[in-house]
Amino acid sequence: MPERPIGVFDSGVGGLTVLRALKEHLPSENLIYFGDTARVPYGNKSPKTIIKFSIQNVRLLERFNVKMVVVACNTSSAHALEVLKSNFSFPIVGVIEPGAREAVKISKSGKIGVIGTEATVRSEAYKRAIVSLNPFCQVYQKACPLFVPLIEEGWLNDEVTYEVAKRYLKEVMDKGVDTLVLGCTHYPLIKDVLSKVCQGISLVDSAEAVAKEVEKLLPVRSKKREGQVKILVSDKTERFERISKMIMGNGIEIEEVSIE
Amino acid sequence: MPERPIGVFDSGVGGLTVLRALKEHLPSENLIYFGDTARVPYGNKSPKTIIKFSIQNVRLLERFNVKMVVVACNTSSAHALEVLKSNFSFPIVGVIEPGAREAVKISKSGKIGVIGTEATVRSEAYKRAIVSLNPFCQVYQKACPLFVPLIEEGWLNDEVTYEVAKRYLKEVMDKGVDTLVLGCTHYPLIKDVLSKVCQGISLVDSAEAVAKEVEKLLPVRSKKREGQVKILVSDKTERFERISKMIMGNGIEIEEVSIE
Repeated sequence: MPERPIGVFDSGVGGLTVLRALKEHLPSENLIYFGDTARVPYGNKSPKTIIKFSIQNVRLLERFNVKMVVVACNTSSAHALEVLKSNFSFPIVGVIEPGAREAVKISKSGKIGVIGTEATVRSEAYKRAIVSLNPFCQVYQKACPLFVPLIEEGWLNDEVTYEVAKRYLKEVMDKGVDTLVLGCTHYPLIKDVLSKVCQGISLVDSAEAVAKEVEKLLPVRSKKREGQVKILVSDKTERFERISKMIMGNGIEIEEVSIE
Repeated sequence: MPERPIGVFDSGVGGLTVLRALKEHLPSENLIYFGDTARVPYGNKSPKTIIKFSIQNVRLLERFNVKMVVVACNTSSAHALEVLKSNFSFPIVGVIEPGAREAVKISKSGKIGVIGTEATVRSEAYKRAIVSLNPFCQVYQKACPLFVPLIEEGWLNDEVTYEVAKRYLKEVMDKGVDTLVLGCTHYPLIKDVLSKVCQGISLVDSAEAVAKEVEKLLPVRSKKREGQVKILVSDKTERFERISKMIMGNGIEIEEVSIE
């Protein structure tokens, strides 16, 4: 049991920031990641489709005898977490709760901004999670659908990305937030641009928050010296390999699997 | 047989520019469109996955007893057209050939630019089609992966889109092309921005070119006064309905179907 892997899934490459944080916090654990690159992105799809895809993804991880699953995709966490929890017997952790908790802890004014994909924002999952932790918090959300394609294009520290960020964040900034939740696992990759646009505002990276949560909840620890990391994708592309190297470094094998 | 519909498919909403052109050129035909919105976009996926999805899409249209299929997606046309032709008995028309023919007809200098998704550009399908029509043509390609998300965000006549277009097109412009093929069915929607960036250059809209091709190849004509238009999607979203209205106007019913 202790050597059973922790499963992680995301719609694509963004969840690798969560995988990296898990590897840092729990170096002895075996980790298995699935990126649904054949159907990426999820953020512009309907709740019904997001739930269907999420269940298929956890079923795939189940075949590897996982002891726990981390939903590293904000869109899936927002729409499918409850359904997943009631369909599987192992613990399932999403990224929303830990991010919300961190934001409430950090914020002094109680004015918190949340950015994410269209589907994450429309779900209001962060808003609900934050307000249930502290009913006095005020939450201002903004969907930023161009961030994922800009990041996947590799325009990380770029003038265009800066212009887009300025436009997307104006509304939230005008409300006077002191904390901004990066409600999409891709976004930590443009932290530099976001910091420039949001001077004086604390950014909450949910990858870090979720890794700490997993550390707490893990039913049993691996006794290995160093865990193995395995990456599966539903479509193996050059683009995935390039971004994966950027986040996880060299030497990790990427394998294609069929999900349908 | 004459009243059997013409089938059209695309990865998402972009192919509606082809549907619109077909409706204008062949108003008496019944048209059935399938947009694979649950798995959109195709442009960043591998050839194997693009072929698999394309076959599934034509199988779906086959269930509606189509007399012909138009592959309104450049990415699918580039990678899957030959496989589709050998798997189905009705005529199947892609967007590459008609666009290439139009470009060769228009260009005076023989220097032709082609813009499209990563997968379309990597396939070199336009380059091959143009050079086989006229071996003296020189073709300069450029992938523009941010155009589709910018268009789907609705930033059509926008400063950011203009900046992105300027950056993407610089290389091709510097080669002195006199003709530019819009090798993605989304791109006609940002024709204004592209015209501003490409002053004095002829833009080839493959939607128009493919509609003329279908008119020529149609095995038998409908005798109806006015054909019906039906739109199917694998994921029904607000976004699709919004963009569909922008392209096709009001009053067209959109129905969700399962593709997997």
